[in-house]
Amino acid sequence: MGILNGKDFIDRLNQLQNEIWYDGNKIEGNISEHPAFKGLLQTKASLYDLQIAPNIKDEMTFFHEGKKDPIGLSYLQPRTREDLKKRRKMIEHWARHTHGLMGRSPDYMNTVIMSFASSASLLNGMENCFPENIQSLYERAMEQDLSFTHTFITPQVNRSQINLGFSDVPISAKVVEKNEKGLVIKGARLLATQGGLTDEVLVFSAPRLFFDPDEAFAFSISSNTKGLRFICRESFVLGESLFNHPLSSRYEEMDSIVVFDNVLVPWDRVFFYNNVDASTDFITQSSFHAFAYHQVVIRQIVKTEFILGIAQILVETINVSEYQHIQEKLSEMIIGLETMKALLEKSEEDAKTDEWGYMRPSIIPLQVVSNVFPKIYPRFCEIIQLIGASGMVTLPTENAFQTNVRRDLDLYLQADSKNAEERVKIFRLAWDLTMSSFGTRQTQYERYFFGDPVRLASNLYRQYDKRKHVEAVYNFLNL
Amino acid sequence: MGILNGKDFIDRLNQLQNEIWYDGNKIEGNISEHPAFKGLLQTKASLYDLQIAPNIKDEMTFFHEGKKDPIGLSYLQPRTREDLKKRRKMIEHWARHTHGLMGRSPDYMNTVIMSFASSASLLNGMENCFPENIQSLYERAMEQDLSFTHTFITPQVNRSQINLGFSDVPISAKVVEKNEKGLVIKGARLLATQGGLTDEVLVFSAPRLFFDPDEAFAFSISSNTKGLRFICRESFVLGESLFNHPLSSRYEEMDSIVVFDNVLVPWDRVFFYNNVDASTDFITQSSFHAFAYHQVVIRQIVKTEFILGIAQILVETINVSEYQHIQEKLSEMIIGLETMKALLEKSEEDAKTDEWGYMRPSIIPLQVVSNVFPKIYPRFCEIIQLIGASGMVTLPTENAFQTNVRRDLDLYLQADSKNAEERVKIFRLAWDLTMSSFGTRQTQYERYFFGDPVRLASNLYRQYDKRKHVEAVYNFLNL
Amino acid sequence: MGILNGKDFIDRLNQLQNEIWYDGNKIEGNISEHPAFKGLLQTKASLYDLQIAPNIKDEMTFFHEGKKDPIGLSYLQPRTREDLKKRRKMIEHWARHTHGLMGRSPDYMNTVIMSFASSASLLNGMENCFPENIQSLYERAMEQDLSFTHTFITPQVNRSQINLGFSDVPISAKVVEKNEKGLVIKGARLLATQGGLTDEVLVFSAPRLFFDPDEAFAFSISSNTKGLRFICRESFVLGESLFNHPLSSRYEEMDSIVVFDNVLVPWDRVFFYNNVDASTDFITQSSFHAFAYHQVVIRQIVKTEFILGIAQILVETINVSEYQHIQEKLSEMIIGLETMKALLEKSEEDAKTDEWGYMRPSIIPLQVVSNVFPKIYPRFCEIIQLIGASGMVTLPTENAFQTNVRRDLDLYLQADSKNAEERVKIFRLAWDLTMSSFGTRQTQYERYFFGDPVRLASNLYRQYDKRKHVEAVYNFLNL
Amino acid sequence: MGILNGKDFIDRLNQLQNEIWYDGNKIEGNISEHPAFKGLLQTKASLYDLQIAPNIKDEMTFFHEGKKDPIGLSYLQPRTREDLKKRRKMIEHWARHTHGLMGRSPDYMNTVIMSFASSASLLNGMENCFPENIQSLYERAMEQDLSFTHTFITPQVNRSQINLGFSDVPISAKVVEKNEKGLVIKGARLLATQGGLTDEVLVFSAPRLFFDPDEAFAFSISSNTKGLRFICRESFVLGESLFNHPLSSRYEEMDSIVVFDNVLVPWDRVFFYNNVDASTDFITQSSFHAFAYHQVVIRQIVKTEFILGIAQILVETINVSEYQHIQEKLSEMIIGLETMKALLEKSEEDAKTDEWGYMRPSIIPLQVVSNVFPKIYPRFCEIIQLIGASGMVTLPTENAFQTNVRRDLDLYLQADSKNAEERVKIFRLAWDLTMSSFGTRQTQYERYFFGDPVRLASNLYRQYDKRKHVEAVYNFLNL
Repeated sequence: MGILNGKDFIDRLNQLQNEIWYDGNKIEGNISEHPAFKGLLQTKASLYDLQIAPNIKDEMTFFHEGKKDPIGLSYLQPRTREDLKKRRKMIEHWARHTHGLMGRSPDYMNTVIMSFASSASLLNGMENCFPENIQSLYERAMEQDLSFTHTFITPQVNRSQINLGFSDVPISAKVVEKNEKGLVIKGARLLATQGGLTDEVLVFSAPRLFFDPDEAFAFSISSNTKGLRFICRESFVLGESLFNHPLSSRYEEMDSIVVFDNVLVPWDRVFFYNNVDASTDFITQSSFHAFAYHQVVIRQIVKTEFILGIAQILVETINVSEYQHIQEKLSEMIIGLETMKALLEKSEEDAKTDEWGYMRPSIIPLQVVSNVFPKIYPRFCEIIQLIGASGMVTLPTENAFQTNVRRDLDLYLQADSKNAEERVKIFRLAWDLTMSSFGTRQTQYERYFFGDPVRLASNLYRQYDKRKHVEAVYNFLNL
Repeated sequence: MGILNGKDFIDRLNQLQNEIWYDGNKIEGNISEHPAFKGLLQTKASLYDLQIAPNIKDEMTFFHEGKKDPIGLSYLQPRTREDLKKRRKMIEHWARHTHGLMGRSPDYMNTVIMSFASSASLLNGMENCFPENIQSLYERAMEQDLSFTHTFITPQVNRSQINLGFSDVPISAKVVEKNEKGLVIKGARLLATQGGLTDEVLVFSAPRLFFDPDEAFAFSISSNTKGLRFICRESFVLGESLFNHPLSSRYEEMDSIVVFDNVLVPWDRVFFYNNVDASTDFITQSSFHAFAYHQVVIRQIVKTEFILGIAQILVETINVSEYQHIQEKLSEMIIGLETMKALLEKSEEDAKTDEWGYMRPSIIPLQVVSNVFPKIYPRFCEIIQLIGASGMVTLPTENAFQTNVRRDLDLYLQADSKNAEERVKIFRLAWDLTMSSFGTRQTQYERYFFGDPVRLASNLYRQYDKRKHVEAVYNFLNL
Repeated sequence: MGILNGKDFIDRLNQLQNEIWYDGNKIEGNISEHPAFKGLLQTKASLYDLQIAPNIKDEMTFFHEGKKDPIGLSYLQPRTREDLKKRRKMIEHWARHTHGLMGRSPDYMNTVIMSFASSASLLNGMENCFPENIQSLYERAMEQDLSFTHTFITPQVNRSQINLGFSDVPISAKVVEKNEKGLVIKGARLLATQGGLTDEVLVFSAPRLFFDPDEAFAFSISSNTKGLRFICRESFVLGESLFNHPLSSRYEEMDSIVVFDNVLVPWDRVFFYNNVDASTDFITQSSFHAFAYHQVVIRQIVKTEFILGIAQILVETINVSEYQHIQEKLSEMIIGLETMKALLEKSEEDAKTDEWGYMRPSIIPLQVVSNVFPKIYPRFCEIIQLIGASGMVTLPTENAFQTNVRRDLDLYLQADSKNAEERVKIFRLAWDLTMSSFGTRQTQYERYFFGDPVRLASNLYRQYDKRKHVEAVYNFLNL
Repeated sequence: MGILNGKDFIDRLNQLQNEIWYDGNKIEGNISEHPAFKGLLQTKASLYDLQIAPNIKDEMTFFHEGKKDPIGLSYLQPRTREDLKKRRKMIEHWARHTHGLMGRSPDYMNTVIMSFASSASLLNGMENCFPENIQSLYERAMEQDLSFTHTFITPQVNRSQINLGFSDVPISAKVVEKNEKGLVIKGARLLATQGGLTDEVLVFSAPRLFFDPDEAFAFSISSNTKGLRFICRESFVLGESLFNHPLSSRYEEMDSIVVFDNVLVPWDRVFFYNNVDASTDFITQSSFHAFAYHQVVIRQIVKTEFILGIAQILVETINVSEYQHIQEKLSEMIIGLETMKALLEKSEEDAKTDEWGYMRPSIIPLQVVSNVFPKIYPRFCEIIQLIGASGMVTLPTENAFQTNVRRDLDLYLQADSKNAEERVKIFRLAWDLTMSSFGTRQTQYERYFFGDPVRLASNLYRQYDKRKHVEAVYNFLNL
């Protein structure tokens, strides 16, 4: 079939009847009608509809050799710099539609699947590795335009460096049995964004110091696999009013704990298992990071543009553009945005064909963004708060504007160039982005998207080629 | 009668039937039973009960000359350094009870009233000034243990420096008529914390560059005065579960816009009007700032202790105390706390008797805190988030622990030295303090408590005596 | 003749006999033999020799239409993106030779002259403007490979915003007379780097709020013009030992106050005068900033590479690469370097042909660097100091290694992978870059290279196109 | 004899003929006449003269039980809070005389000796410990008003955590022989400030992870002991002109490497040896840190006052006090200064009598300063540079004002309220404090005075009592 539209996405998801627990209840009936998920799923449906939108569908799809129907362009394996630019364009379309606020827009996971397939050969001939299953996942995903989430964070029992994390009862999900049908998995993963709200779950492990072979696996299974359970956090949807909660009503993605209660993973779904080296190499040497970072950075740029737009509107609304410290704060945002754009372009300009023939963006500029964005995004949210000041606090609701006190609000909440309703709308948006529970979760999400910031800095330092600069100094000193 | 207890506080408030608008509805019936206010009013009642708590009532009350019943110690006009220490003790009791999370605990406004009365003589003989009405407010407040809020922020139509803020229709509350009964006020004030939830409202103006004489007034009136209207923001109470929302369920104070719809202020309630000089002098030269800052800083120290406690518990829970960057973050908090404590003590040590015989804390150390806390409090919240990391995101609710999935939660959310329920309780507290809408409003509140940070820095610079340090350098240079 | 070599540069300069005052003495004899200038002039000579170095001369020169001899490539007016890349290559050669430590390497001023010539048409037909003189300067400069400095900072008597800067006696250099021979200039300019050490001085004014028409001029005159006087600051040359002072012995450029004691500027040297609009437009609308920033940013990148090399060598020398905070500090440098490189490339990628047919680098990415580098360069110097720690303090001199105590030094100052002499050499370099008077002057120089940082941020904010981001938000809100 | 005067100090030092190596030469003749040491020794002499200055000698001396002559008050072992205040007064006198710029003013080491003596009992009965020798040092020091330096930093061969630092040939000074006369020491120590410029050297070890017993010692010996050698760094004295170098000409203290070339330490000079526990306990449990920090913090406060004075004079000189960012920078300094003052007072208020009856300042507030000052002092130097801006660069010398160009300087370098000479004097002071080699060494010195900042933060975190704040949170959560 190729690309999916919004309605089909929702219908298919409703049929899956995934096991999702929310506030102590197992969700029954159509997930798309549940108040905590409704807004998000409608937004997601509208994203799928972009693929058939007449004005951009050509930029959202491509024709894959041997397939009749158009395929989502997020599945395109780039072989040229032009392909990379096409991918960028497509990612921008997805991102613009949600202003960069949806971390798990479909293109993200599609890109991950594409990168896995592009590097599958890396596993050829390695023990307990089934690269062919990656390829068939890629085919299946393309043809059915499957939706995915992934999960790789292990439970946080003890983060001490000297804690090996072994325990009698499996806590972190691991292989507890291997039989003719497949692997049996028991344990948990923290967290899956949109866990239970997708067709499948891609499960793999992040390499680490003391890597238990039983955890060194990767596979993808249907979200409604028996024994697979998603336990949600509190929802940050506070109502359907776009006026009151313009962002959380549309973009609250939900996160869940993923429980594997003796889940059977059929052999044809297993990519590899019980192979620490393969597991480590596949994450660090495949094109996974390069392509995933590429998608993420594009989305973050769009988000930064959105936040800059909001900041500037606040400035104009209360007329503070003349203040030096305001100018400096806005220029901070501009610097952040332009820096990210330049680094993105450099990663594309410096892209190189990898050993399997795919055009891989240069990772260093993207790694730089991965070190920078987790710091500047929270700062930009802070800047929004500093501009809005006390105006961020006393914001009436949509209903207040439907009553007798509207007269008061119209008079006392008017702004320089905006009426009261417009002003409140603007400030509520600023508030929802930076101060609502939805907003602060977004901040935490961006802060940790790429992992522990301390480790990101170490990695950049270690992986960066410092040799030629060192040599230049030695030459200067005749050493 | 002297001191109030919690029950009487609530009964009296319910009887007032103040005009409060919430989410488009005028509140009818007992305010103390409304979901948005119930938790807060119970907490406030428990604060009043501290005054009759056997173990500390002697530290919470004093006997005022000529009055039979004990009086709340927040009304004590200090004449000695000992009195100041007593005041500190009393303020700590109030603050500890709410861990510094209630900005408008009764002692704050009582202190303001006390400071006004202590400096009333400053207005003697000045035009349109009635110092005797301040004194009678003080007497009335003491005897009836009245609750107050205050409001002085003007609507934010245009914050440009060159905007004079004059308009045809009054926007900022101003005197529109003067008759034999009193002043008639029309316009609004932004914002009053706990507006409508107190017996009276103290209204005065913050001095500023272009100060309209019609706004140069101060008075206190009953919250149920005709024409006085409180329009609330959205409530951040998300339910009564102490497990889910340990802070917002108890401490959400609400902020409101205060509308004066031709409100008549009887002459015996007016402190001064139509006198820009008096208005300016009374705020800048009275003991208002010294005593108010003294109360605030004590509360903020208690709050800082609370946040340090939470941080340390997070560190222990996930066992990360060995990490250098964690140690550094915690030491940042310790530095902030110890610095504030030292500055508070210095303000008391350097206290001087003012011209009316009252022992006034030294203002410079308190001004230093007023410059520092608005920066470190948001930083400490950020540190909490940085320690909690991804663990701040996926937090199940109380109900989830009542169901079949509890088994999963118990296993997968356990921490090094805590069971799953304890761990979730701890993280939910950390979340409610720093990431819920309640928490971010607290952050914004502390950030702007003392006013615009830019102006606070300018004031400190201008008011600080730099002369002797300048002279020392000139001497060194023989200039 | 075209390009100059080092020897000719020095001979020509010695012949000029410019009036230079140093430490209370007028310099007599060959400037190239004076201890304060000798090292710098030798370095500058070696830079000119790059133009005839067999291995790179083709990348350092080009053939200009109508001229027989090769011309320095810094004079090339770029018409294509390829030309821009050639310019970059050439600038890198100059910069690498001095590791970015010479702010006034010849290519800087040549680039300025080139940009002036490329935009001269902007002045066509404007009052008191002589674009033809700019063109003839360009021709003359190319043919003789003239060396230049420029000066535009006015004396800092009073920096208050409300100070108009007018005084009876000219302080800031201004036109005091106009006669048939030319303009007569009286007053001073602060500062000219290498003032007196070049063939000519380019004098123009930076546009400002209250712009005296008498100061609205631009011209270039010979450094030995009668009445032109250069008063030097203290020299930071502390000796000729490359071991002791590896940088100041070679790169100390000297700064001087430029005094115009009724200097006659012949008409054929005047570009414009008494025209505030022309003066403002010529600086803000010409390609001056675009090309000058392009040169500067390339040099600053090379300098950043040098400082990163030094940092890494320090880390290796005392073997501290395992420390997380060290890794983070180095990654800060890497982020700064890669960011600048990406922004430079973006300015070239986004270059556009201007109205006169020249390929002008995009200014926004370069403006971003101009906001960032003045902050990160001092920080990188601080990082060097933080890595070196107490090892930066006790550094013996070259002579100490020639004596009996060498035995002690060899033993006690050895490092993990370096002998004592190597280690001291390395640390002395780190010290000279960041802690010697030479080094701190470099820091201040980079901090203020582009002007007042506060104004740079304001300019970026004002000039940046925020409209489309604002529109996107308005669309989202249906406003 | 008791207190020393300046002349006697110099005479005694000249007679010692310590073995000092400077720039490859062994110093012969009177050290007080050597250009690199002359200024410093004159300043030090003037400090000793403070003890006989009629106006303050009573605040600088005390009468010690059993001694006839007055004794320097820095030797006073405080038993009351009053004694502590007396000590503070005395330390302020020393510090004010040099504006806090002399780290090794005599009171520092006297305080160290006093603290050692006050805690000597701690060593009673421990193996290889001779507390009586500490007491006799104290007596000798008081009676002869001896001058000291100390040295405890070991050579920095390899700072890796896993490097044990053992080598065949002693590098870090250690005991290589023990005979009937005493201990024989071989190896080096880095660094001793004023090494060779004092009567004696106090040598001890800072406790550390892998602590070689052969390095676990402490003693004090005469600076002219055979085999003891001081190797100096380059001097930062650039001349005697107070105009040109107002600080380095007076306060450049010199640092040196201390070489022990088989130095015999007589038994009666040994405090302890070959006892890792004693060595560790004596540093961490004695009153050493409390009293030394007390002295240091007082000096740093005086220095901060000096730098604030300079900053304010710069602001007035170029008339920039109206700028918001200037006000903010100055307020930063005020905040730093007032914070330190408050913490110092708190350490005195919270002082407690230790087990040997001495009034020991509370260490926590002083530790807080030790974490804060190394960060704010470099920042304050940066602020000075940011205020001075380009005005810090082109500063003529004293000689320039003696010549014909003075006319130019007078005109063009005048400031708003200062003539040119005054202005240059002021700016040269600002430059010498923050940008000369002398100034940057001061910055590095303050940055590392208390040791590695990373470790200081860890220590504060570890030693701080967090328990009660943790309990409060547990109570709140009913855990």
